This record gives sequence, C-alpha cells and structure tokens, in this order.
Amino acid sequence: AGLKKVTDDMKTHKNPTLRQGPKPFKAAAPQTAPKPGKPAVQAPAAAAKKPPVFELQDKRWAIEYQEGNKNIEVADTNLKQTVYAFKCNNCVIKVKNKLNSITLDSCKKTAIVFDDVVSSLEFINCQSVQGQVMGKVPTISIDKTDGCLIYLSKDSLDTEIVTAKSSEMNVLVPKDDGDFTEFALPEQFKTTWDGSKFNTVQTDIA
Amino acid sequence: AGLKKVTDDMKTHKNPTLRQGPKPFKAAAPQTAPKPGKPAVQAPAAAAKKPPVFELQDKRWAIEYQEGNKNIEVADTNLKQTVYAFKCNNCVIKVKNKLNSITLDSCKKTAIVFDDVVSSLEFINCQSVQGQVMGKVPTISIDKTDGCLIYLSKDSLDTEIVTAKSSEMNVLVPKDDGDFTEFALPEQFKTTWDGSKFNTVQTDIA
Repeated sequence: AGLKKVTDDMKTHKNPTLRQGPKPFKAAAPQTAPKPGKPAVQAPAAAAKKPPVFELQDKRWAIEYQEGNKNIEVADTNLKQTVYAFKCNNCVIKVKNKLNSITLDSCKKTAIVFDDVVSSLEFINCQSVQGQVMGKVPTISIDKTDGCLIYLSKDSLDTEIVTAKSSEMNVLVPKDDGDFTEFALPEQFKTTWDGSKFNTVQTDIA
Repeated sequence: AGLKKVTDDMKTHKNPTLRQGPKPFKAAAPQTAPKPGKPAVQAPAAAAKKPPVFELQDKRWAIEYQEGNKNIEVADTNLKQTVYAFKCNNCVIKVKNKLNSITLDSCKKTAIVFDDVVSSLEFINCQSVQGQVMGKVPTISIDKTDGCLIYLSKDSLDTEIVTAKSSEMNVLVPKDDGDFTEFALPEQFKTTWDGSKFNTVQTDIA
C-alpha cells in the first residue's frame, strides 16, 4: 500500500484540533500539569496514543488511530475487501465502489460514507459516529455504541438494523425532495409477565 | 449506626477469596510482579480499593466496597429508607421489611434478597448480579448491566422490568411446586422500515 500522502488534514498547523493531543511521531513527553479546575481526563489515553495507520493488509483496509483526518478515502476496493477502522477520532472516511463489509471499532466522532456493501456495516464500542450509505447495505449492526446517526439511501430502505447495548441511535430516511426525516431507534424496553410468558415493548417511542 | 461487627465472612483467614486482593486497612504496598502467563489485570483496581462501608446515612443504607461478605443484613428498615450498594463484590445482602427502593451500582457477583419495595429495585453498571423479591416490587430496572438473574415471587408477577444497554438477563418465575421456570430477557433487537415508520422486534427469542 505504500506510505500515505500527508494531506492538509493531517497537518497540525492547519488543524487546531490536532494540537490538543500530543503531536504525532514524537516520543512521549512528560505530562504537563492540568489547568486548574480542568480534570486531566484525556491524559492517560493520549499518552498511549499510537501512530496512525492507513494501509491494505491482505484483504482488509486498516484505518487505525487517525486523529482529525477528514479526507480518508478508500477508493480502490473490490467485493473481497473489508474496511476496518479502529480508534479513529474526529475523522471522515469515504469508501468507494462495492466491498464486503465495513467495521468501525472504538471510534469517536467519526463519519463513514460508502457506496455499496455486500454484507454489513458494523459499529462496535463507538461514540458519536455516523454512517451514510449511497447505494445498498443489507445489514447495519450497532453494538455497545452511544450516539449513532445512520443516513439511508432510497436503495437501502430494506436494510435490517440490529442493535444491542446502545443508546442515542437515529436513522435518517431520504424524502423525495432530497431532505431527510429523522427517526429514533428504541434503546429502552419494558418487559411484563402475561401469565404464561414475558412480553417486551419499547418504552421510548418518539 | 455505629461500627459493624466483623463477621466470619470478613475475616481473611476464613475466606480464601479475600486474600486475592490487598489486605484491608493497610497502606498500599509496592505491586508484586505478576506470575508468568498471568496478566496482572486486577492490580490497578485492587490498589485503589477503599475500606468497606455499611451504615445508615440519613435515610440511606450505604453498603460500599464490601468484598466476599455473604451476611450483610439490613433489618431495621422503613418506608422512607433506601438501600444503596456500591462496588460490592461477591456479597449477599438481605433486606428485611418494606422500604422505598434498592439500588445496586457497580456491583459484581452480588445477590440481594428483600421482602418489599414501594418503588423500585435498580441495577446499574453491574456484572453477574442477582435479585430476589419475597413480597412485592412495582418496577425492576436493569441498566448497563451484564448478567442479571431476577427471582420473582408469586406476589410480584405484575412487576415491570425496564432494561437498557444490558445483556444476559434472566427472570425466574415461581411454579406451584416451589421451583422456578427461567426466561431470558431480550437484549438484541432488529429494526426495519415499513414504508412509513420503523418497527423493532427482539431477535433473540429463546
């Protein structure tokens, strides 16, 4: 796959958000003292940060530890390939053509836009993520994820959305005028005994 | 409430499980090297362990940081009181009479048995917990919890069980012969678009 070109999005002097963490490709410096009144919550995670990865590993496009990169594009895909994004933060990933599947694992504030997927789009252990399908996707899986916005296309309205242990999930359905209507997915359920079995209904109908 | 008597369950020489962590009421010692082939996963949590609490704080029975204590009994309760168990591990808590509510927060391998609750029994951020009601409980809430076994009584079959972001939940319903029948609560859901709205069904019917 070779080395990836450093785009403007990766340059810290052009992206203020990149400067919040330690600069990439530098040895870990001693932690600076936290500002008074501000807990140093991000410090341990930032100290363990690994260099970003974007390469094709056998049949898998590995996109890992990317920070604030809004121009990640996987263009040269085929039906046997998968995209696997891991621990990306504040990124936008575009995937072209038709491929097997896409997984976002432990990503935050990251959006993925893709054409077609034969198998599934999966979110696991994510926070504040978005997915937009331009063509078709048979299954969308949302697991252990808080904050997930799904933009469907007219060709993907028959998708099955499988959810577990997640919250703040919303699906946007395209209207004829090109705009979208938003629907919340249920995240809380009520179960009662009817004398012979338990019945479960969603409690958070919008 | 005064100091709690040290029962046999709290004594490390009578309970091998208590010896796995640092001994209570001792200054933190330097971490011993982990055994080869055994990851030192528990070390950071054990080092931060706090002394156990069991006392009435205003109207709240606080039961905190208990380890392997199978004889915790809250006997002198009334309708205005609550029980709040926090970060208890491998414990059994018995609550007598009728009180307002019971909450288990961040507890592991801990069981609670109680007579009657006016409001609710709540589990939040727990793992491998059990609850048994002998009388009545209007609502049982299970949130961010993995592994929860609920024993109902004949008088509590009209309880509402509210679940969110949880897994491995089972409810045991009493039979006429005194035995129980076990039912799994749904934890995974499938949502599909019907042309005008989304419909959600459980995917894991036993």
